[in-house]
Amino acid sequence: MDPVKVFQIKEDITSRNNKGASDLKKYLKEKDVFYINLMSSPGSGKTSLLIELINSLKNKFKIGVIETDIDSDRDGKMIYSKTGCKTVQINTNNCCHITYQMSKEALECLGLDDVNLVFLENIGNLVCPAEFDTGANLNLVLLSVCEGDDKPLKYPLMFEKADAVIITKTDVLDCFDFSIDKAKHNILLRNSKCNIFDTSIFDQASIEVVKDYLLKRIFF
Amino acid sequence: MDPVKVFQIKEDITSRNNKGASDLKKYLKEKDVFYINLMSSPGSGKTSLLIELINSLKNKFKIGVIETDIDSDRDGKMIYSKTGCKTVQINTNNCCHITYQMSKEALECLGLDDVNLVFLENIGNLVCPAEFDTGANLNLVLLSVCEGDDKPLKYPLMFEKADAVIITKTDVLDCFDFSIDKAKHNILLRNSKCNIFDTSIFDQASIEVVKDYLLKRIFF
Repeated sequence: MDPVKVFQIKEDITSRNNKGASDLKKYLKEKDVFYINLMSSPGSGKTSLLIELINSLKNKFKIGVIETDIDSDRDGKMIYSKTGCKTVQINTNNCCHITYQMSKEALECLGLDDVNLVFLENIGNLVCPAEFDTGANLNLVLLSVCEGDDKPLKYPLMFEKADAVIITKTDVLDCFDFSIDKAKHNILLRNSKCNIFDTSIFDQASIEVVKDYLLKRIFF
Repeated sequence: MDPVKVFQIKEDITSRNNKGASDLKKYLKEKDVFYINLMSSPGSGKTSLLIELINSLKNKFKIGVIETDIDSDRDGKMIYSKTGCKTVQINTNNCCHITYQMSKEALECLGLDDVNLVFLENIGNLVCPAEFDTGANLNLVLLSVCEGDDKPLKYPLMFEKADAVIITKTDVLDCFDFSIDKAKHNILLRNSKCNIFDTSIFDQASIEVVKDYLLKRIFF
């Protein structure tokens, strides 16, 4: 017998997380709940996009929302006041990502008996949340025009994990050195199957395109 | 004797890091090198601000630069091409922050015999880098107008650790719902002694104010 047991701590943490996330997906399927995870840098417009998407989907689904932040309940209050949806706000106390365990506890806290579509707004962080499967059925990554079209080159894992990347704040394209073509090229370098959308919350047609994509992807 | 030794893993990691960072500070003092750490979200303008600051300081100091990213050497190449300063690019392979150990190795890789001022551009992340002392003498945190004036409420530790917060991209203030007064109020709630500057790289006078601040703070 090998006298020294090697413990791959990071691998173990993520593989345990992924096992738990896989069980959580099964549980959500049994409960007929579809679960969508939004990830991005701080200030990319997750909350604003979510309000638009929820308001365009809420006549079709019973929606619940999990808002997560290191601190404060601003986004949770904002979502509730602008959409009327059942919302829970999670504060992670300096934890930089949401594990399947936190995700599961937040879903329990939200309660799943009266919802069939749940949005999770993950911690604003373009690195760590990509490493932890939350149990979501779909991962949406936002990239705002203000951040630069090179971000997929610098933060590869986040873009590899995305089912779709939503470029946000296209209304301010003229103010920034950001090329949508370059951004799309860089995203596809990381993830050739990724769906990519350009949006502005001031352009309802751009939100409808994302809504139509979600309607095709949501299953029970 | 207590039969079970409790190992506080997070506390141990950060206290070991802080011990190492403290030794690194002493070493830098012996070498007459002043070390400045820039932290922010991805895309807040760290590289652009750094180019302006370096170009306004390089007739006074022998400057070296450590650029860090999860992947890519874009920023390192950009800094070198726009300033001519000695630059090393570190890729962290999914590590979301810079420890004192990485910082030390990067300083060794840079070489300290021909520099007396070193800038470290940390990983774009408003959470994790705040937990790890890099050995820097000064921590500058950037907050861009595009991210929202509420970020100090949501990401408290980063703003608590800042010697100065530099609000960036004020040239696009009219495009965003961002109040400099609210941002200052929120920063001071977290850190009442924090120095705060509003800047745009298109407004040289705003960069000079930060330069003057650095000239007062840099010591050997």
